[in-house]
Amino acid sequence: MRGSRTEIPRGPVRRPWRFDLVLERDGKVSQQTQLVRALVQEIQRGRLPPGSMLPGSRTLAAQLAVNRKVVVAAVEELVAQGWLETLPASGTRVAALLPSLAVADTEVRPPRTASPVRGEASLVSITDGLPDSRLAPLEELARAYRRALRAFSRTASGYSDAAGAPELREVLSGFVNQARGLSTTRAEVFVTRGSQGALGLYALSMLTRGDVVAAEVPGYAPAWRAFEFAGAEVVHIPVDTGGLKTDLLEEKARALGGRLKAVYVTPHHQYPTAVAMAPERRMHLLHLAERFDFTVIEDDYDYEYHFEGNPLLPLQATAGSRRVVYIASLSKLLAPAIRLGYLVASPGCIRKLGETRAVLERQGDPVLERAIAELFEDGTLQQHARRARRVYKERRDHLLEQLSRSPALRAAFTYSVPTGGLALWLRLRQGSSESLAARARDARLLIASGSTYLPKGRLAAIRFGFAAHDTNELSWICDALSHCVPP
Amino acid sequence: MRGSRTEIPRGPVRRPWRFDLVLERDGKVSQQTQLVRALVQEIQRGRLPPGSMLPGSRTLAAQLAVNRKVVVAAVEELVAQGWLETLPASGTRVAALLPSLAVADTEVRPPRTASPVRGEASLVSITDGLPDSRLAPLEELARAYRRALRAFSRTASGYSDAAGAPELREVLSGFVNQARGLSTTRAEVFVTRGSQGALGLYALSMLTRGDVVAAEVPGYAPAWRAFEFAGAEVVHIPVDTGGLKTDLLEEKARALGGRLKAVYVTPHHQYPTAVAMAPERRMHLLHLAERFDFTVIEDDYDYEYHFEGNPLLPLQATAGSRRVVYIASLSKLLAPAIRLGYLVASPGCIRKLGETRAVLERQGDPVLERAIAELFEDGTLQQHARRARRVYKERRDHLLEQLSRSPALRAAFTYSVPTGGLALWLRLRQGSSESLAARARDARLLIASGSTYLPKGRLAAIRFGFAAHDTNELSWICDALSHCVPP
Repeated sequence: MRGSRTEIPRGPVRRPWRFDLVLERDGKVSQQTQLVRALVQEIQRGRLPPGSMLPGSRTLAAQLAVNRKVVVAAVEELVAQGWLETLPASGTRVAALLPSLAVADTEVRPPRTASPVRGEASLVSITDGLPDSRLAPLEELARAYRRALRAFSRTASGYSDAAGAPELREVLSGFVNQARGLSTTRAEVFVTRGSQGALGLYALSMLTRGDVVAAEVPGYAPAWRAFEFAGAEVVHIPVDTGGLKTDLLEEKARALGGRLKAVYVTPHHQYPTAVAMAPERRMHLLHLAERFDFTVIEDDYDYEYHFEGNPLLPLQATAGSRRVVYIASLSKLLAPAIRLGYLVASPGCIRKLGETRAVLERQGDPVLERAIAELFEDGTLQQHARRARRVYKERRDHLLEQLSRSPALRAAFTYSVPTGGLALWLRLRQGSSESLAARARDARLLIASGSTYLPKGRLAAIRFGFAAHDTNELSWICDALSHCVPP
Repeated sequence: MRGSRTEIPRGPVRRPWRFDLVLERDGKVSQQTQLVRALVQEIQRGRLPPGSMLPGSRTLAAQLAVNRKVVVAAVEELVAQGWLETLPASGTRVAALLPSLAVADTEVRPPRTASPVRGEASLVSITDGLPDSRLAPLEELARAYRRALRAFSRTASGYSDAAGAPELREVLSGFVNQARGLSTTRAEVFVTRGSQGALGLYALSMLTRGDVVAAEVPGYAPAWRAFEFAGAEVVHIPVDTGGLKTDLLEEKARALGGRLKAVYVTPHHQYPTAVAMAPERRMHLLHLAERFDFTVIEDDYDYEYHFEGNPLLPLQATAGSRRVVYIASLSKLLAPAIRLGYLVASPGCIRKLGETRAVLERQGDPVLERAIAELFEDGTLQQHARRARRVYKERRDHLLEQLSRSPALRAAFTYSVPTGGLALWLRLRQGSSESLAARARDARLLIASGSTYLPKGRLAAIRFGFAAHDTNELSWICDALSHCVPP
């Protein structure tokens, strides 16, 4: 075993790239493969940014103390995979457009062109309504994060309120008041780890064994699991084109008596069907909440993305924070990797959540919270939301066009056009979503079967998350999908 | 109400500082006060870094559309408070050394010099063994964070394993194996939100109502609260100069029968007394764990900071991850604002923790985790740990010198010199820690009373966290403390 360190100047960044590669010589993995993996990792981490030049093969071979043939073969392999590009007469550089990350079990982007499959493990996911991280103002976020880190190193210890950084609670309060018609103060806002963090903390703080929570079906199963973790029982109320069937909820509430503690709804774009809850159902739900004394948990995960008409105001705008707990996500606004959400509730509830968090993890992430507060304050996030809404509407329209153009897809699905949201709900005319998902997987498409949204049983429908894919990618996906649907 | 935007070039950073200040004219808060607050906020956030020049008062007044007298008075006030400096003939700039942040209820640094009190709310905390964020490689972290963000925007969706970013689990496994004598694989490492996040997640995943956990007393109360939150009962076993009294633990284990599920210990530098657990006690504890079939929860919160001799290896190095759950913190290595810790346990335990996290918050923070992994891989964190150890040893030695030099402090306290850690345990010869803490508060010193470390009752001792304060600051603190101790 031998090691060496090769330094490659990387253009605009002054600090040279240090390639700390130690090639094993025990024969288990060939040196070529080791070199290929190490270079891909450097590129994926961003340490070798797109466009940066590699040293010549002779230099690299000498510095790594391997035969030059090994380097040449590794570079050829990476060129073939699309990670590197060879420039006539000037050498090899990291490709400007990188191939998709090959990961086995999670969401991946489609290739930029309809090129042949690059790696078996690489799947293109349309399972969820994810935003497109490529649009997010991540450079601005990185700068704000650096400023927040500096501020902590200079002036404060880093311990902060369990409910979140005061600056962020303040701007979120102003934001929901101004943009969503709520009427809150900072004391009613709690910053969480994504919207799932809000659900988990709420469940641990406010629910106890024997409580019952009613939830939409089909619906968002991760919410049910959070309630059940806290010992509550979840009962399921059907959804139709007007959202939660509140007449059935009323029957259930009457039968349960005082045990019904909360009703979990996604009234803006119902998860997974994307229907909007009808105004009369909303009023009925709030009326029932008063009459049977339960809390409404309103998960408003993608309010920003409303494309037609004026969005209805959140339920909390009507009923206030005493009756309605409002949950929203910044992960959907920015990128799933940014794990921030928030919850708006009565000051008493916020206090209880703070006590729970103090015990379980002390506090949130004050650096990230402060950085995000700055991006709200200077308007960066609002500007991003406007741009993303425009882009996602284009993508939705493109998807609708693809669906109506393709005879195979037209024959396979029925659907309504939702007024917003990042996903389309496609019902299958025939066949099961399980067999569709299996065929799609063979074609590198990751689709969740309809049973994902049910406590048990099967559902012949899929949720098509379109927002993370640009129009070229959506064309590719629709083409692939058209070969998977029942003939 | 009127608004205007003033742009100030800020030296090395090319993007000009945008001062989005809207001065209210409703008379509730004077314009001068509004301007003072807004400028302090800009400085605290790091948007106006130390040394950056302010525009002239005429320019600023014109752009903000206020009388120049308002600007001049605000600048004078900020110069008096130490936020700004006036340079003869060249204008006003942000002070190179900023005053302490005035916050009411949390840890703040002492003034750099023994200057008069600047604000009533500003307290200097020695309550805990906090590291000094000023030493942490935060610029390197900011750069790594930016690279991680870019990598996510290019290649992945941001959803990741609930147990933490694979890269970080891999490097942490290597790190504890190499630096602490453990014998782990990636599958045994779980990345948490600080060490409190590890305790909370462990409690929620592995403990249930009716279980008993034994813990040191005096000890770390936040751990007890996490166990109790999960429904467990905490019993307290005394600590002496050899750490946990394992003979008393044995009696308790016998009395409890199978109900004793876990024993929580801080064997390296006991919290709060900083004593090291004696080797024969360690062996006895592990022997009892086998005999009575309980898990040892080993909280090794500041292993890095061992100043004399070789540190004893963690208990897990002897007994393995099946019997000992090992918890450590990166917040203590870097800065409290960096909320990362980790837990090393059996793969089965790690799986259960992952299931709990998936339900309660889906996953950790993949961006920060990837950035920290990079800083481990390129050696930045190891280098920082070596430097911090040297600096904290100097500070500890300086504190010991101050304590032995001052007749008042010599008369007030007895103590042993611990072999490491970020705090000293001072026992009062007379008087209560409550009255000492009250007098200290009047002198701007924040001290926790001894009862903090007990389930009930009082303890005439304080924990003096010295690491976050440099030697000048420690001199100031000792001087202030010498006026608070009983005469």
